[in-house]
Parts: sequence; C-alpha cells; structure tokens
Amino acid sequence: MIISYKRPKAFLFDVFGTIVDWRSGVANVSQQFFETKNINQNSHDFADAWRSKYQPVMEKIRSGNRGYFPLDLLHRENLDQLLLELDLTDKFNEDEKQELNRAWEQLPPWPDSVAGLIAIKKKAIIAPCSNGSIALMTRLAKFGSLQWDCILGAEVAQNYKPHPDAYLKSVAALGLQPNQVVMVAAHNSDLAAARKYGLLTAFIARPKEHGPEQTIDLEPLENWDFIITKIGELASI
Amino acid sequence: MIISYKRPKAFLFDVFGTIVDWRSGVANVSQQFFETKNINQNSHDFADAWRSKYQPVMEKIRSGNRGYFPLDLLHRENLDQLLLELDLTDKFNEDEKQELNRAWEQLPPWPDSVAGLIAIKKKAIIAPCSNGSIALMTRLAKFGSLQWDCILGAEVAQNYKPHPDAYLKSVAALGLQPNQVVMVAAHNSDLAAARKYGLLTAFIARPKEHGPEQTIDLEPLENWDFIITKIGELASI
Repeated sequence: MIISYKRPKAFLFDVFGTIVDWRSGVANVSQQFFETKNINQNSHDFADAWRSKYQPVMEKIRSGNRGYFPLDLLHRENLDQLLLELDLTDKFNEDEKQELNRAWEQLPPWPDSVAGLIAIKKKAIIAPCSNGSIALMTRLAKFGSLQWDCILGAEVAQNYKPHPDAYLKSVAALGLQPNQVVMVAAHNSDLAAARKYGLLTAFIARPKEHGPEQTIDLEPLENWDFIITKIGELASI
Repeated sequence: MIISYKRPKAFLFDVFGTIVDWRSGVANVSQQFFETKNINQNSHDFADAWRSKYQPVMEKIRSGNRGYFPLDLLHRENLDQLLLELDLTDKFNEDEKQELNRAWEQLPPWPDSVAGLIAIKKKAIIAPCSNGSIALMTRLAKFGSLQWDCILGAEVAQNYKPHPDAYLKSVAALGLQPNQVVMVAAHNSDLAAARKYGLLTAFIARPKEHGPEQTIDLEPLENWDFIITKIGELASI
C-alpha cells in the first residue's frame, strides 16, 4: 500500500491553554497586587472570573454587532467590570489597572511548549492562531521565549475564533491551502471549527488549564488527525 | 544638563535592500534557470528590470485605484510582463514561473543583519515593516534566519509604504506610539515618510544594493535620529 502523505507546511497554535498556562499566569500577577494592597481575594478565582467574561464580549464581534477590537482592550473592559463586581474599583489607580491588565502578557508556557515549538520550527512554519492581538502575542512570546515565525490569528483576520475568517485568513496569509496546515489546540471546539474549514487537526490535553477540578477537554472528542501528549511530537509527523 | 531619553520599545525594519541583498538573491535564482535553459540573459540586469516594475504597480494601490494585493502576486504579474518584454515567456512553464517568483523568498541577508537583529531583540521588539507580504516575509526569515518577533508592514496595514497606514498601523499593532518606535532603512525616502508620521529614524548605507554603480542612498540626506554602519549598533542606543 502506498500512502501519499505530504508533510504539513505550517502549524497554527491556539495559545491560551494550549501553549501557555493563562490561569496560573494571571493568578500570579493578580496575587502580587492583592498582597501589596491587603486585598482578601483568591487570585485563581479572580483569574477564572476574568476569563469567564471572554466569550460573551467576543461574540458581539463575531456576530457583527461590533467591529474588530483587539483582545487587550476587551480584557481591560472585562477587568473594569470585574473590579466593579468585586467592589475593588477604588483600590486600583489607572496605571495599576493597566499594569494588572498586562498579566495576560506574562503567562508561563507549559513545560513542553518552548522546546516543542523549536523542534517543529525546523520542519515547518509555526504561528499562533489565537484570539490574542499581535501586540499581546508578541509580548507573550518574548516573555515565554516562544519563537514564532509570524503572528496570525484574530488581528490578521479581523475576527475571532471560531469565526471561519480567523482560520482561513490565517492560512491565506501564508499563501497555503487549509489542508496543508495543522491547527493545534487543547480545545475540542477549536479543532471542530478548524476541521470544518478544511484544516488538519491536532489535539493535546491540558488537564490543568482550568485548575485541579477541570471537567472539559480532558480527552479528544473526535478522531482528530493527530493526538499528542507533548507539542514536540508534531516535529516528526 | 539632564536628557530625558527613553529607550525605543520597538524597531521596524525595511527589508529589501536594508536587511537583505535582493539584487544578488534574485540574480542567483534567475541565473540557475537561465543556465539550465541556455538562455543568454544577464541575471543582474534581469533582477534590476524586475525590481523596476515594483513602484508603479504599488502606486495604483496606494492611490486607491486598486485594492490591497500581496506583493508576491504583484511580483508574479511583473515577472510575466518582463518575460513577455524579453521574449522569454515560452521558455518557462507555469510551475517554473512560480518557482522563479520564489526567488524573492531566497534573498541573502547582508553580513551584519542576522547577528545585529539578535542583539537588538534582547532589548526591544523587532519586526519588518516591509512592503512584502506576511507569507513572503515569513519564508524570507526562515531562509535567512531573521528572528523577527512578529511581522508587520504592508499586509497588516493593507497598504504600501510610503502610505502613512503602512507605518502607523504597524505601530498601532504593537500598542505603541510612533515616538516609541524606530524605523530603520537604507532608503532616505522611507525614513522621510516615517519621520513625517512621527517615528524615530535610523539610516544605514547599503552602497551595493543596486550593484557596483549605485548612485542613490549612498549617504543620509537628513539629520536622521541614528546613523549606523551595522544593524547591531542599534542594540546599544
């Protein structure tokens, strides 16, 4: 039997949760503020609450009810709302709110991410296909030594995943066809969208993304093209 | 005297001519085709003629008479026109024309470029602000080991230098102000535009960009903020 297999030309990565541990990162930065200010607030709960406001604000943009707006600024809107809900607004001045919002630029990569990306980069193009902006992805890459070839995703597409533009405009920006590109994610829903629009798919479980009691995305829910346990395994496909 | 000097947050680079030697690169790839096909054509003249068609086609886009179209495809249109003018159209099949067009992805960096960029990258964000597309800049970076933090320029801005969008949308994509960013180029006209829109400017002479008889851009024509002889000098400003 001859299998006509063509090595993928590019790998696109979800970032928050797949490549970096956003929950720990946001909790770490928040915790420093809470300690300095003697605020009695669990920093992991704070990270979860902040993140929970993420999908609703993006949905307005995906549905066309709001023009594209970079995620940094959506995070800031959500932070202001969260501080209001927790009655913490007056504890932070404007500079401190800006600094706290930069928590999203200081997220630690999972242990296998950096070396894995370097290994894949020798074989193919690697780029984030994240909902994070170019500014956010650039600073996050510098913080965590993520050596992307370029930055694709929401800002290049001017729309948010799982809108088809986020995937297809990222693929088009590389001058490639969807079936030459692998979308890599720890989220089944992200891969379902990518597959729908013709990309190959790779799943990696990140069972602690949402903390010790995570219940979702613990395993692949479809027969994704590749199921891996470390990012670097994609270097040899 | 106290000088309030703030280190730039990012450096944006012109690429064709400033970071890489497009003339030698295009001539090298073309020469291989001409030898294989026994075509009697000087490859450096060919590179010059191809490049000379660059500004007129972009001007249509800058002036609003044509929507944004990536440079890879403009190069291809210009190649087809050039082959026609030289009566060489029938010498190349479609695959070969596509391969020849990829000469623009195989341009050698000037000797100081790679190490210089690595040095600057430790201090600030580095990105191309070129008229090349994301696809072209990505492949050129892999070919020449240019370790950009992200890729900015014409495609992100959806317009070509020296249109203000090419500079200002690149700066905005980093969440910065123009006066926090240095535009680096071997072309006085590029820097004049960047300065007009508020960016800092750095000039490096590339006296062989256009071959041994170059007459333009041999020296700075204005008092640019930085005048350097090697890219890496920008790491210490």
